[in-house]
Amino acid sequence: MSVKHGGNIQEISELYQIEKKDLVDFSANINPLGIPEGVKETLTKDLAELVHYPDIRYRALIQSIADFHELPGEYVYPANGAAEAIFMLGRTLMLERLLLLAPTFMEYEAAFSQQKTEFCYFNLEQRNFQWSISELIQSARQQRVDGICLCNPNNPTGQMLKQSELDELALFCHRNGIALIVDEAFVDFPKEEYSLVPSISNNESLFIFRSLTKMFAIPGLRLGYLLTSNLSILSKIGEKTVPWHINTFADIAGQQALKETQFIEDSQRYIAEERQFLEKGLALYKELEIFPGQTNFIFLRYQGAGCLQERMIKKNILIRNCNSFHGLTQKYYRIAVKSRSDNKALLDALEAILCE
Amino acid sequence: MSVKHGGNIQEISELYQIEKKDLVDFSANINPLGIPEGVKETLTKDLAELVHYPDIRYRALIQSIADFHELPGEYVYPANGAAEAIFMLGRTLMLERLLLLAPTFMEYEAAFSQQKTEFCYFNLEQRNFQWSISELIQSARQQRVDGICLCNPNNPTGQMLKQSELDELALFCHRNGIALIVDEAFVDFPKEEYSLVPSISNNESLFIFRSLTKMFAIPGLRLGYLLTSNLSILSKIGEKTVPWHINTFADIAGQQALKETQFIEDSQRYIAEERQFLEKGLALYKELEIFPGQTNFIFLRYQGAGCLQERMIKKNILIRNCNSFHGLTQKYYRIAVKSRSDNKALLDALEAILCE
Repeated sequence: MSVKHGGNIQEISELYQIEKKDLVDFSANINPLGIPEGVKETLTKDLAELVHYPDIRYRALIQSIADFHELPGEYVYPANGAAEAIFMLGRTLMLERLLLLAPTFMEYEAAFSQQKTEFCYFNLEQRNFQWSISELIQSARQQRVDGICLCNPNNPTGQMLKQSELDELALFCHRNGIALIVDEAFVDFPKEEYSLVPSISNNESLFIFRSLTKMFAIPGLRLGYLLTSNLSILSKIGEKTVPWHINTFADIAGQQALKETQFIEDSQRYIAEERQFLEKGLALYKELEIFPGQTNFIFLRYQGAGCLQERMIKKNILIRNCNSFHGLTQKYYRIAVKSRSDNKALLDALEAILCE
Repeated sequence: MSVKHGGNIQEISELYQIEKKDLVDFSANINPLGIPEGVKETLTKDLAELVHYPDIRYRALIQSIADFHELPGEYVYPANGAAEAIFMLGRTLMLERLLLLAPTFMEYEAAFSQQKTEFCYFNLEQRNFQWSISELIQSARQQRVDGICLCNPNNPTGQMLKQSELDELALFCHRNGIALIVDEAFVDFPKEEYSLVPSISNNESLFIFRSLTKMFAIPGLRLGYLLTSNLSILSKIGEKTVPWHINTFADIAGQQALKETQFIEDSQRYIAEERQFLEKGLALYKELEIFPGQTNFIFLRYQGAGCLQERMIKKNILIRNCNSFHGLTQKYYRIAVKSRSDNKALLDALEAILCE
C-alpha cells in the first residue's frame, strides 16, 4: 500500500529509518490536548469489560450520540471509525455519478467505487481555492450528478462553508433528489454550530459523517458514525453490518467522550490560539502561501526548493505531503495544529530549512 | 435485533431485569483463565498509543500471525474479529450454492447471503449427531455445491472432525473445485494439531478463519483473521477493506497474545479438567443428554419441563439456548466450560432446578 494518508508515522519511520518516537507528527489532525481524563479513566477502569462481547445492538452508545445531537436514536449508525460509515454508505447508496471536491479526503472514492459509481470533480486549485456554492451547484447540474460529497471543513484545504451556503446546497439537493453527503469529521474544532446536523430530520437526502477520534484523540480506538433520517438506507446498511463491529473500548469511550463538553470548549479555544500562533510564524516565509481556514490543520502552498516534507523529516518533523490528493498540481502541505512547544519546534525547523 | 447470539448478557439483563453483574455468563465461550497477564500489561502500558492511528498495513500483526502458523505473511488477512473476515469472504467468494452444517454458527449465512448465495444444509439432528465425512461428501455431490463451510469444532455441537476426515474432505474439495471454508475459532482449546492450517500452502480452495478472542478472553477487543493461499481472493478482499479496520489495542494485544504459548498450554489443560468435572456433574441428570466433544463448551439435549435457560436465569446462571440455530427441533443448550467455582455454581443451580 502506498503512503496515501497522514498519521502513517510507522511507515515513514521505516522509510526514512528514523525512530518513531523521534518524529513529531503534524501529519495527523489529532487534538493536541490528548485523550480527556474522563475517557482515560473509563478505559483503565474497564479493562475487565474486554472479556465480554460488546452489546451487539450498541444501545447505550447510540443513545449517547442521539442525546448529544438531540436526534432520535433511529437516525444514528455507529461505526468502527467514520471510515466504516463511509464504506457502508458507499456500498448502499448505489449512486451513478458523484461530485467530489478535488482535493478532498480520498476514502470517498474508495468507498463509492465498490458499486461502480462514476466520479466527477469540482477542482479547487483551478479556482485558486476561491469558489462559491452557486458554482458548485452549477457544476452539479451540468454534470447531472445524483450525489454530492463534501468534507466540511474540507480535508486537506481546511476551507469551511458558511451556514447560508450549506442551507442553499441542501435545499438544491433535496429539491433535485440528489444525495448530499457531508463529512463533518473536523467541524467540532471550529464550532458545532457550523454543522448541518439540525437539517437531518427534514431531509432524507442528507447523510452526515462524524468522527470522535479527532476531537478526543482516540484514532487508535476507531469510532465514528453516520447520521441520516433515511431509514430505508439505514436498514440496508444494518443488514450488511458485521456483528460486534465496534470494540468495547470504543463503545464505552464514546459514551464518556460525548459528555466532555468542557473539554470540547477548552480544545476549541486552545486550537484557535495555537492556529493563530502557527499562522503568524508561517507567514514570515515568502516560500509559503497560507490558505485561510478555521480548523485544527493548516493548508499551504510551498514555492521553495525540493520537497518540504522530506526536508522537515530530516529535522524530525513529520508534515503531510498533499501530493497524493487528487487535483493538486503544485506543492501543497498540511500541518496539524499541535501544542505550543510542538508548534515552536516546527517553526524552528522551518527557520533552519528556509534560512539555510 | 432478536437475541440470536450467546454472550448477549446486556440484552438478557434488560429482558429479565437482572443486574449484569449478578449473572454468571455460560453463554459465551470465553477462556475462564481470562486475559493473559502479558496482554493486560501491554494494554495498560500502551494507552498513549491510542492517540496514533494504527499502522494501516498492520505489518507487525501480520508477521506475528504468520510466524505463529509458520506461513508467509501474504496468506494472512487480519480482521476486526473473525466476523469481519467471514463477511469479507462472503462478499468476495461469490458462491452459488454453499453447504452448511445445521446447526452451526449463524453468521456464515448472514455473510454469504450478501451475494445471493443459496444455502443447503447437512442436518445433524436428523442423523442424531452421528455422521461420517463420506455422508457429507455425498451430500455435497448430490446438491452440486461449489462451497462447503464447516466450523471445527462445530458451534454449538462441539463436535470435532478427525485429521484423516479433514484431509479426505480437503482433497475432495480441491479436486472438484469446491471452496472449503473452515472456521477454527475454537480449535486451539482442544489442540492446535487438529487444525487444517498446514494444508493451506498447497490448496488454494481452502479458507480458514481463526479467532484470538476466545482463547485470550478479549471478545471486546475484536480480533480474528483469514488464512488462505488464494492470493487473488485476498487481493479482492483487500480492495474492499475499510482502512484502519483493526483498533490499536487489538493490534498490539494480538502480537503479544501469540507469544503466550505457555498460557495456551495451561488453558488447554485447565479446560480439559473442568470439562470433565462439568460433564460428570451433568451426567447425573436423566433429563440431560450430553454430546461428546473436546472443546471449551458442552452441547446438551434437555428433556425436562419448561425452558432450561429461563429456569437457570432465575438462579443467576446464563446458558445458551440453542433454539435460534437452524436445524434443531428439540430443546438444546450450550454451556461454556468456566472456572471451578463457576462450574460448581452451575451444577448447584441445576440440582436445585432438577431436584425441586
